[in-house]
Amino acid sequence: MNIIIKDVSIVTMNENNDIIKNGYIVINQEKIKEVGYGEYNGDCKDYKIINGKNSCVMPGLVNCHTHAAMTLLRGYGEGLPLMKWLNEKIWPMEAKFREEHIRVGAKLAIIEMIRTGTTTFNDMYFFQKEVLEVAQEFNIRAVLGTPIIGDAWEEQLKSAVQLNDFVKEYSKNEDMIKTMIAPHAPYTLSKEALIRVAEIAKQQYIGVHIHISETQDEVDMIKSKYDLTPTEFLLSTGILDNKVVGAHCVHMTDNDIDILRDKEVSVAYNPQSNMKLASGVARIAEMLDNGVNVCLGTDGTSSNNNLNMFEEMETGALLQKLWYKDTTKLNGSDMLNIGTINGAKALGFQKLGRIEEGYKADLVMIDMNRPNMIPRYDIDSNIVFAASGNEVHTVIINGEIVLYNGEFLNIDEEKVLYESNKFCENLI
Amino acid sequence: MNIIIKDVSIVTMNENNDIIKNGYIVINQEKIKEVGYGEYNGDCKDYKIINGKNSCVMPGLVNCHTHAAMTLLRGYGEGLPLMKWLNEKIWPMEAKFREEHIRVGAKLAIIEMIRTGTTTFNDMYFFQKEVLEVAQEFNIRAVLGTPIIGDAWEEQLKSAVQLNDFVKEYSKNEDMIKTMIAPHAPYTLSKEALIRVAEIAKQQYIGVHIHISETQDEVDMIKSKYDLTPTEFLLSTGILDNKVVGAHCVHMTDNDIDILRDKEVSVAYNPQSNMKLASGVARIAEMLDNGVNVCLGTDGTSSNNNLNMFEEMETGALLQKLWYKDTTKLNGSDMLNIGTINGAKALGFQKLGRIEEGYKADLVMIDMNRPNMIPRYDIDSNIVFAASGNEVHTVIINGEIVLYNGEFLNIDEEKVLYESNKFCENLI
Repeated sequence: MNIIIKDVSIVTMNENNDIIKNGYIVINQEKIKEVGYGEYNGDCKDYKIINGKNSCVMPGLVNCHTHAAMTLLRGYGEGLPLMKWLNEKIWPMEAKFREEHIRVGAKLAIIEMIRTGTTTFNDMYFFQKEVLEVAQEFNIRAVLGTPIIGDAWEEQLKSAVQLNDFVKEYSKNEDMIKTMIAPHAPYTLSKEALIRVAEIAKQQYIGVHIHISETQDEVDMIKSKYDLTPTEFLLSTGILDNKVVGAHCVHMTDNDIDILRDKEVSVAYNPQSNMKLASGVARIAEMLDNGVNVCLGTDGTSSNNNLNMFEEMETGALLQKLWYKDTTKLNGSDMLNIGTINGAKALGFQKLGRIEEGYKADLVMIDMNRPNMIPRYDIDSNIVFAASGNEVHTVIINGEIVLYNGEFLNIDEEKVLYESNKFCENLI
Repeated sequence: MNIIIKDVSIVTMNENNDIIKNGYIVINQEKIKEVGYGEYNGDCKDYKIINGKNSCVMPGLVNCHTHAAMTLLRGYGEGLPLMKWLNEKIWPMEAKFREEHIRVGAKLAIIEMIRTGTTTFNDMYFFQKEVLEVAQEFNIRAVLGTPIIGDAWEEQLKSAVQLNDFVKEYSKNEDMIKTMIAPHAPYTLSKEALIRVAEIAKQQYIGVHIHISETQDEVDMIKSKYDLTPTEFLLSTGILDNKVVGAHCVHMTDNDIDILRDKEVSVAYNPQSNMKLASGVARIAEMLDNGVNVCLGTDGTSSNNNLNMFEEMETGALLQKLWYKDTTKLNGSDMLNIGTINGAKALGFQKLGRIEEGYKADLVMIDMNRPNMIPRYDIDSNIVFAASGNEVHTVIINGEIVLYNGEFLNIDEEKVLYESNKFCENLI
């Protein structure tokens, strides 16, 4: 689509984190053609004009670690001890999930994500062909990962490669949907399995999406088995020779952080999940100082309990300030980098995550005419610390307007809400 | 006003934390007359009917510690080290504040609070007559506290008593507005001053609103001066013989917690501010286990950066789970108690904070037909962990509808937003 957003504040997230207090953005098809200060004086014929008065526009948020269809389990089995919750609630329920569950859960998830400004997500869950279809139908950018876990890993690995082949063929636009191979975690796969996954990922040029050191228990388990940290162990399997997104990375040694940097592993920080599951606090500020690419994720809704990346940015920044006893850690622009451009890099999307000429047009418009967005001394800080996510009124993904002034243009939201609520009522 | 809310889910916050999946509420003037299951079969003549389909209703949130007019400083001087921020930004700006500033800041604050479901707030800031007028005009329940700080304490204490007399006389409804005396903190007042404040508060039957042990620096300072913890020191001054709301209470010994319980001090937990200012984590779960009345506050927006109690509930619960490495700490209903009835008790409002016959009609209606509020296995958990605050569509305070289907009935919100934004543009 060809669009001009005029009279708007622009949080560019370019190299200098420039903020344009009043400017315009010209979108040609999938890409940003021009970004400028003041009024647009060019030809407006054949362009849809969006008035940005009282709005700011920022790059779409990139959720680098989620299990989208777990929306079906939001609030299920709350308040139980961790292992009881998993053993008695989550895992038995997940074992029942089939294609139809994933389809319903993914629809609900994607609506929630778009409404709160997420334009790309990195998924790890079952029946990813369903997610693929929903993501294409709803026009959101997605990275699909079939989990490889336990003894059935060979079969699952084959499926992951098949999914990758399928996506390459099926996907109308390779830049909208791609896959990663998703070995679950160092403690849920044998060394042999991890070595094989590493080889296949390398051969097929597929990225790897994996949980690393989420809990102290995991670290202890790997230590006792291999006398290595989970990160050192993964290094020994060749997994880290691929393009890797490591989710959580809560319990990391200095050496682990050096390995992450040297192997260019991207760390997906999941602060709300880490708090809710009492996992611990990731050493994000130190990772950033050491040159690790840190991105952000919500994890699944069962441990969050939402997919709102605005909350994740705020909590993530607050937690680092607290953890390091230093108010200067992770300020607004740091966190916006983590939520946008760093995520795009982590997932290997070229020219995504900035508002700059030639970049993909994934844009989110935020209503600044809200009590919590006034005054506007520091727009970055307002977005990260004052916004709740519901200020998002318009979302453009790959040059298409998906949400416009609070309404979905091509999604029957009411139907999705009604059907998913009904579906869940019959689930438990 | 006489109102019937029908066909609604009710989070009662009564003794048993009952949730009525489908019921009704009858409001007569300022009070709740009846709460029931199923359909209302009584006479509806002379009642406004509100259809609660797809909504749940909960008691209004009680913000037990804020500095409302600091909305003017939202995002001002972000990311600086704490003392530099206070010395070079916040304090010089506050020194310029006069009546007009407080009026503008309070209007903006109250709009933000009502929009996110707060129906009562406990303020500590300058020029409280302005806050009184705005609170009355906007119909929000408020407790006003003039800070007493430093050498000018005698004069300020007189003003606080005068304010109390004034409020008693001026206030149309004593249950809507009252005052507390607000000695700033143990480290910013002499022992003599605190003793005198304690006496006057007791004589005049006024509650006390004070910061206690917000930072380790404060604890060290009081320790070196009096060889006591701040709580022990306050005990020695007689301050705790009054009805006290202690804000923060981050650094507390076991003995301090016993004192809080024995003296029936209410603790206002401010998790987001404590994180943003890197103050530390309050021992909330232990306080609750020990029988301390814990309530909740946002602190001022300069250290938060919003007045959204939904965020505060979520972050507050997550932080306790993390801190105690225990997923069972502070679940949905625990946190809702802290955000509603415990706050009402802390501020000494009778029959407030529950949806029960005879209670004051401060009610908040939440849209459950949002992607993040589906499924609805656990409504408490959805409100605390999944909601963002913007699901609030209707707010009733003291039996009056203030916000209805997202629109203020008697507040020109657009004007407040426009004027406060303009005002702030000229402020820095």
